Amino acid sequence: MKKTAEIGTSKITVTDQFWGHYLEVVRDHVIPYQWKALNDRLPDTEPSHAIENFRIAAGEAEGEFFGMVFQDSDVAKWIEAVAFSLENKRNAELEQTADDVIALLGRAQDESGYLNTYYTVKEPDQRWTNLRDNHELYCAGHLIEAAVAYYKATGKRHFLEIMCRYADYIDSVFGREEHKLKGYPGHQEIELALVKLYDVTGNERYLNLSKYFIDERGKQPHYFDLEKREREDTKPFWFNDDYAYHQAHKPVRDQKEAVGHAVRATYMYTAMADLASRTNDESLKKACETLWENVTQKQMYVTGGIGSMVFGEAFSFDYDLPNDMSYTETCASIALVFWANRMLNLEANSKYADVMELALYNGTISGMDLDGKKFFYVNPLEVLPKACETRNDKKHVKPVRQTWFGCACCPPNLARLIASIGHYIYSQKEKELFVHLYMGNETRFEVAGKEVELVQQTNYPWDGQVSITVNPATEHTFTLALRIPGWARSAVVKVNGEAVDHESFMKNGYVYLNRSWTQGDQVELSLPMTVERIQSNPLIRHNVGKVALKRGPVVYCLEEADNGENLHGILLPRNAELKAEYVAELLDGVVVITGEAERIVQDTWSSLYRPGEEQTRQVQIKAVPYYAWCNREPGEMIVWVSEKR
Amino acid sequence: MKKTAEIGTSKITVTDQFWGHYLEVVRDHVIPYQWKALNDRLPDTEPSHAIENFRIAAGEAEGEFFGMVFQDSDVAKWIEAVAFSLENKRNAELEQTADDVIALLGRAQDESGYLNTYYTVKEPDQRWTNLRDNHELYCAGHLIEAAVAYYKATGKRHFLEIMCRYADYIDSVFGREEHKLKGYPGHQEIELALVKLYDVTGNERYLNLSKYFIDERGKQPHYFDLEKREREDTKPFWFNDDYAYHQAHKPVRDQKEAVGHAVRATYMYTAMADLASRTNDESLKKACETLWENVTQKQMYVTGGIGSMVFGEAFSFDYDLPNDMSYTETCASIALVFWANRMLNLEANSKYADVMELALYNGTISGMDLDGKKFFYVNPLEVLPKACETRNDKKHVKPVRQTWFGCACCPPNLARLIASIGHYIYSQKEKELFVHLYMGNETRFEVAGKEVELVQQTNYPWDGQVSITVNPATEHTFTLALRIPGWARSAVVKVNGEAVDHESFMKNGYVYLNRSWTQGDQVELSLPMTVERIQSNPLIRHNVGKVALKRGPVVYCLEEADNGENLHGILLPRNAELKAEYVAELLDGVVVITGEAERIVQDTWSSLYRPGEEQTRQVQIKAVPYYAWCNREPGEMIVWVSEKR
Repeated sequence: MKKTAEIGTSKITVTDQFWGHYLEVVRDHVIPYQWKALNDRLPDTEPSHAIENFRIAAGEAEGEFFGMVFQDSDVAKWIEAVAFSLENKRNAELEQTADDVIALLGRAQDESGYLNTYYTVKEPDQRWTNLRDNHELYCAGHLIEAAVAYYKATGKRHFLEIMCRYADYIDSVFGREEHKLKGYPGHQEIELALVKLYDVTGNERYLNLSKYFIDERGKQPHYFDLEKREREDTKPFWFNDDYAYHQAHKPVRDQKEAVGHAVRATYMYTAMADLASRTNDESLKKACETLWENVTQKQMYVTGGIGSMVFGEAFSFDYDLPNDMSYTETCASIALVFWANRMLNLEANSKYADVMELALYNGTISGMDLDGKKFFYVNPLEVLPKACETRNDKKHVKPVRQTWFGCACCPPNLARLIASIGHYIYSQKEKELFVHLYMGNETRFEVAGKEVELVQQTNYPWDGQVSITVNPATEHTFTLALRIPGWARSAVVKVNGEAVDHESFMKNGYVYLNRSWTQGDQVELSLPMTVERIQSNPLIRHNVGKVALKRGPVVYCLEEADNGENLHGILLPRNAELKAEYVAELLDGVVVITGEAERIVQDTWSSLYRPGEEQTRQVQIKAVPYYAWCNREPGEMIVWVSEKR
Repeated sequence: MKKTAEIGTSKITVTDQFWGHYLEVVRDHVIPYQWKALNDRLPDTEPSHAIENFRIAAGEAEGEFFGMVFQDSDVAKWIEAVAFSLENKRNAELEQTADDVIALLGRAQDESGYLNTYYTVKEPDQRWTNLRDNHELYCAGHLIEAAVAYYKATGKRHFLEIMCRYADYIDSVFGREEHKLKGYPGHQEIELALVKLYDVTGNERYLNLSKYFIDERGKQPHYFDLEKREREDTKPFWFNDDYAYHQAHKPVRDQKEAVGHAVRATYMYTAMADLASRTNDESLKKACETLWENVTQKQMYVTGGIGSMVFGEAFSFDYDLPNDMSYTETCASIALVFWANRMLNLEANSKYADVMELALYNGTISGMDLDGKKFFYVNPLEVLPKACETRNDKKHVKPVRQTWFGCACCPPNLARLIASIGHYIYSQKEKELFVHLYMGNETRFEVAGKEVELVQQTNYPWDGQVSITVNPATEHTFTLALRIPGWARSAVVKVNGEAVDHESFMKNGYVYLNRSWTQGDQVELSLPMTVERIQSNPLIRHNVGKVALKRGPVVYCLEEADNGENLHGILLPRNAELKAEYVAELLDGVVVITGEAERIVQDTWSSLYRPGEEQTRQVQIKAVPYYAWCNREPGEMIVWVSEKR
């Protein structure tokens, strides 16, 4: 399979076995399925009405707006996924469908440039009166992202022009000038989109507007208070009565801890990193770094999931990471990938790529089944189906993936992430080519005016052998910087069969291979993938006495399908030998981990409590990759396993 | 101190050190405080309006009804607590206050006998239209209980007559006869109250009405559906869309598992046991036994708390007992004491008294601080204050006791339980006197026409030495049956200094001492109180790898005040020596448990996850009785401690 994408000055074709499967699933199942959803052609599913809303807004159909206030964004994310998919593999029919939708969007656009079906159809007089709740700027952001992606994939400018017109209009409405609204979005998204629009158009107005939204946020007197007074709204705000939910409780540079809605937060941090790199803003860079440390060192699950509370789909507080009550929204892990990617632009440090890789192989793709037909919004680390069915406090945790959601943010978000996976492998900084991710691909860069092809081959994430063939058009001196993942206990780097003393060329987790490259140079990287027993920081009270199994970037879990019920009664002895083996016929081919463990004996019990010591028996356990859980019969699942100490 | 109460044919005076303190607190603080609350004389507290509602209903004040639909029951529980308190110690002023309230109740009573301020004041035409939600029969039940208690305490019949009139009226409204409503209460309570009314009046109409309410419950067509249709209410019912919340999902004899609202359930089971004993109903007795096994062997916390879900204040499912999310309402543990007491009437089996004792020394009195000024509604087994403050899913768990509640069911319920504690020590079955609880008291029974005095002395629950002096008026043959608690690993029973081979006289956990007793006979019971490390059933997933400390009937906990923060990081080695020592100056005098343990070292950590093994350091830990937690500076608390294995 060959999938081609363009990144900056590069052209990338993903040839990877692992991601190739996902790219196919997105192209062949997710995108067509979501198209049906957007057009209300799915039986037994809550209607989306998203396309119909645009028809009504364009005056081409009669009816009322229906759906979430941010329903437009589902269309945007779908077009964006289509764009990335077309980059990978052209498809005339799909492109025509997208062109038709884009044309519809153009007809739904107001003369002023305004484009939002909720307000156009339902409350035409109420534009920009409730930025806090009503997602106008959020929808604009997603449409802009889609327009940029579609332009880059197809070279067609129509959608880009529509969105420039809308962005120009937004710029005429918001800003610090006297006649403008001093507002900013309740759901951040447009900030990162405007940077993309700036990147592709070079128009600094968009960069400045993004910067304005970020800089203005959280200032006093508070815009959300002002607009609330203006619309004579006297209701208290539902989320703990402050604007932490929106990360608007204080100016962004004063924010030291991640709080509130995890997706809003992480989209904002992504934009902050974008702006810091585009404007060399040191204070913004520092803020990003502080927040990064907080999220990844105090508030992140071992799967790369973030957001431990259903209330507000939010961060809670440091080290509060319950496994069975988490929110860990698929979209939040996706946003974490975006943010990590932008932090890498600020600084080539493997700590960012490690988290990006972690989220990619675990907390994001766990949101979809292997067929691309069902989705998790919430990605728990421990599931007892009966608890999800009985306990109201766990009703957000679904024990099985669902076909479609009323609030359908995650499935199209995952589709666009997967379709654009090639964009996350490399980055380039002048004569330095960074390899952040290992997956099969063929990519062409322009380095100091010369074309360089890289051909990467690997069976990642199942084994840590990576070979990269370097093919400069002619002999050429530049740096290839290879990430040594944080999980690797050792690494061997060879160039043309000769081992490199890579420790000497190591900086922030990357081996800098600076040399004169010639056609066919072979770089080999060996990363031993051992089964690791991961401990968690003792401040995470939920994981005391437990370990998680991990191999390479892949986090494992135990499922009832392999291990029977009452998984919590499994005790893993410290000296248990754990074997890893690739099983082609299981879960589309995965490495499974097996070993001897013990299991607390239950049949001697009839009462609830008694003095004494537990009795155990020997059992064989089998762990499968977390991302692939719940692809067989439904049942219990745990990531953190009790240790026998 | 001397407190006198009358039970059946007995007169009891509690002289106990431990309970004497609580009796004083209830008399000197709780009852006066609650009187102020009922009369809206507490500053900074939500008004109760409960007395004012009666004034308005009596036509003696102008105004609207205010408060919960069951506000009347707060007055009832207060009078009942006053009654028990007067039994213990007469108090002319308090009695006059109660007489005045009772007179007011009489004036608020309708000519028909109806007495409910919500309907009388607010919806006079809507009586009996919403039995499911509106607590009319519940309030009637509490008023009946109060009237019976007041009559037994003071010999005054006025309140009893008011309530007989009301009960007669209720009997004219409900029943199987054609012209009557086939209804029953949404919140059970009147059923057990009517049995008390029958016991004191001998009027079988009340017993039959109680039996009707129990027997009719849960039949199809469902009365709650019928009355809902009648009042043209089309809203779905909020609790999982069935009547399990009210234990009305099926007839009571078909109920095998405790479900729904824990207080409703347990009040109903109490009445079922009452009816089974009064009517020799074997099928009802069997149902009680089945439900007892389910609750105490599958759904009860180690503290005697029940109800593991805030949603519906309800039972969830077998072995689902999260420590930090529990509901474990004070009222539910109180109801468990009632139920255990009634099961003992059905069968003298120490398994019932063991649970009664467990709830009394742990899950009930934990609901009040040592001064009787603050109360817990929810009694969690694990508290991290920051989690309660931040996480919405834990907002029902308060990290500190509160002064008064809008829904003020627990404080007066606890007051009446404590004030009547003497009633739970003994029971009598013809010539058998059962000793269920050990606490200092002096009691006179009539056994086969002769008076027998028992004088019990003990320092329980801090030590297991109990002496009972038996003083029959003249030499008399009867049985004294002493409970040997389930927690006791051994026991020595002596009569007049001579050891009894008590195993030979043991039946269902009681030692039956049948002999001819003479004045001054000394019975001594020695129960060694060792510190026990309690394990929980392996099916309780929340307690894997953890133990609870218990000594005698008292469950212990670790508090931040003694052990610093991050209590979850404490690991108790299996061979740790644990010492018990009485500390007079701590928490009004308690036995504390101390020992060497280990603590996971945190200072080597900066990241969230890493391979490897935990490091620990030696620490000294101190555990205090669970009931006394949160009487010092607020902080963390845990009952279940991780083991170092």
